[in-house]
Amino acid sequence: MAVKKRHLAVRIIGVTAHRSTLKKALKRQAIDSGTLDVRKSVLDTDMVILATPVDKILSTLEIIKPYLKKGCIVIDVASVKGVIVRAAERITGRNAYFVGAHPMAGLEQRGIDKADCDLFKNVPCILTPTSRTNTKALRAIFNFWKAMDSKVYILSPSEHDRHVSNISHLPHIVASTLSLSARPSSLKFASGGFKDTTRIASSDLELWIPILMSNRKNIILDLEDYLNGLKDIRNSIAHGDKVKLKKLLWRAKRKRDMLDS
Amino acid sequence: MAVKKRHLAVRIIGVTAHRSTLKKALKRQAIDSGTLDVRKSVLDTDMVILATPVDKILSTLEIIKPYLKKGCIVIDVASVKGVIVRAAERITGRNAYFVGAHPMAGLEQRGIDKADCDLFKNVPCILTPTSRTNTKALRAIFNFWKAMDSKVYILSPSEHDRHVSNISHLPHIVASTLSLSARPSSLKFASGGFKDTTRIASSDLELWIPILMSNRKNIILDLEDYLNGLKDIRNSIAHGDKVKLKKLLWRAKRKRDMLDS
Repeated sequence: MAVKKRHLAVRIIGVTAHRSTLKKALKRQAIDSGTLDVRKSVLDTDMVILATPVDKILSTLEIIKPYLKKGCIVIDVASVKGVIVRAAERITGRNAYFVGAHPMAGLEQRGIDKADCDLFKNVPCILTPTSRTNTKALRAIFNFWKAMDSKVYILSPSEHDRHVSNISHLPHIVASTLSLSARPSSLKFASGGFKDTTRIASSDLELWIPILMSNRKNIILDLEDYLNGLKDIRNSIAHGDKVKLKKLLWRAKRKRDMLDS
Repeated sequence: MAVKKRHLAVRIIGVTAHRSTLKKALKRQAIDSGTLDVRKSVLDTDMVILATPVDKILSTLEIIKPYLKKGCIVIDVASVKGVIVRAAERITGRNAYFVGAHPMAGLEQRGIDKADCDLFKNVPCILTPTSRTNTKALRAIFNFWKAMDSKVYILSPSEHDRHVSNISHLPHIVASTLSLSARPSSLKFASGGFKDTTRIASSDLELWIPILMSNRKNIILDLEDYLNGLKDIRNSIAHGDKVKLKKLLWRAKRKRDMLDS
């Protein structure tokens, strides 16, 4: 829908596992045509977007590889890059081009009903080229995401994984743990603060478990930092140390105030 | 503004520390008249709402006590009750009536510019009577918050403090710690998930430090639970235990899915 609105493609072919999803996508005019056969779908296309869960990207790429048109550009949109990009480049070979992409947008809810043609507007989209990435393909994908109104950044796969561990994967764990520790008897008093802080705990587990498992080295390091911060705050409260608590909360507030709502 | 919209008072008198705030409040028609003198403000009023930070409630009550009209009902709106209610009842004496109230609404931003006459609509409001609370006064305040469109609950002060520790004070600490552990270099990639999860880290410290300090016993217990949950998730990731991770995240998701957005 975002591509259509911006007239970035002549024809969009949707591939899904269920016919009902295809019907919905056609009805919302998100796609021009659809198929359940991933091989057929790529036969004459200039660009392929792999939008599967992390643990299905490489196997899907293996399946479509023999059917890719010469010069076709393949991108993914996954939230981890280290385990994906180099392997994907190897699988794609020389006939087609792979470029790793991560548009940092999404909702805690899934499905075409929740689709939004401005989902990618003003959000970061990180591209993760390597020394093997074709420069023309990279430039084309850079321009594609610019045209989608995203803020495009270029990082190495490992830099990408360090950053998203910190500001995407860690928040996910924190939100889920908070939901986990809510007592059922207290939950009826939950208001805006609790709801905001736990919103992403509702996200699709099929997507998130492979993400967290694939980026575990960075996540474990970030969790150590987070645990230390939490212990600092706990100790300042336990000891009644208002000065220390104020210093810590002030640093937290100042950092958050720099972002928009 | 919420009281005015619902025609629940004949006349509303605002008390602030700064003349500029009074001017703004008059301009937005939030109050009918205003004063900087807290003593004068209560002279002929039937109901007083103490909406100061937690650590100023009792001292403000001491100041106004000699000026309260016979039969006046005084309420607070603080986020902790144990340290407030019994002391407030003692100070108020027999001439006037104190009822502890906690409307669970608020924004991370302060000031009249952010005021909203529907802030209390559909949010929980907890009243915390004790054996000393006057029954008629309690009924009047119950009806008042009902008329404000809040969902009114009645709990003891200590029950209240246990619940809000779990679903309000703990989220506050979690959100602040997450903001604290965001690396400056990663912050530019922050998108919806990070922003939601850290939103309340921007809240007013003048309000929150006394809240956290006053409810520290409950908070320390809830933090222990939270830390244990976090360690469970960390270990399942570190050991690549997908089954365990899925079980934990699923419980978190199911709980969050029960709440609206």
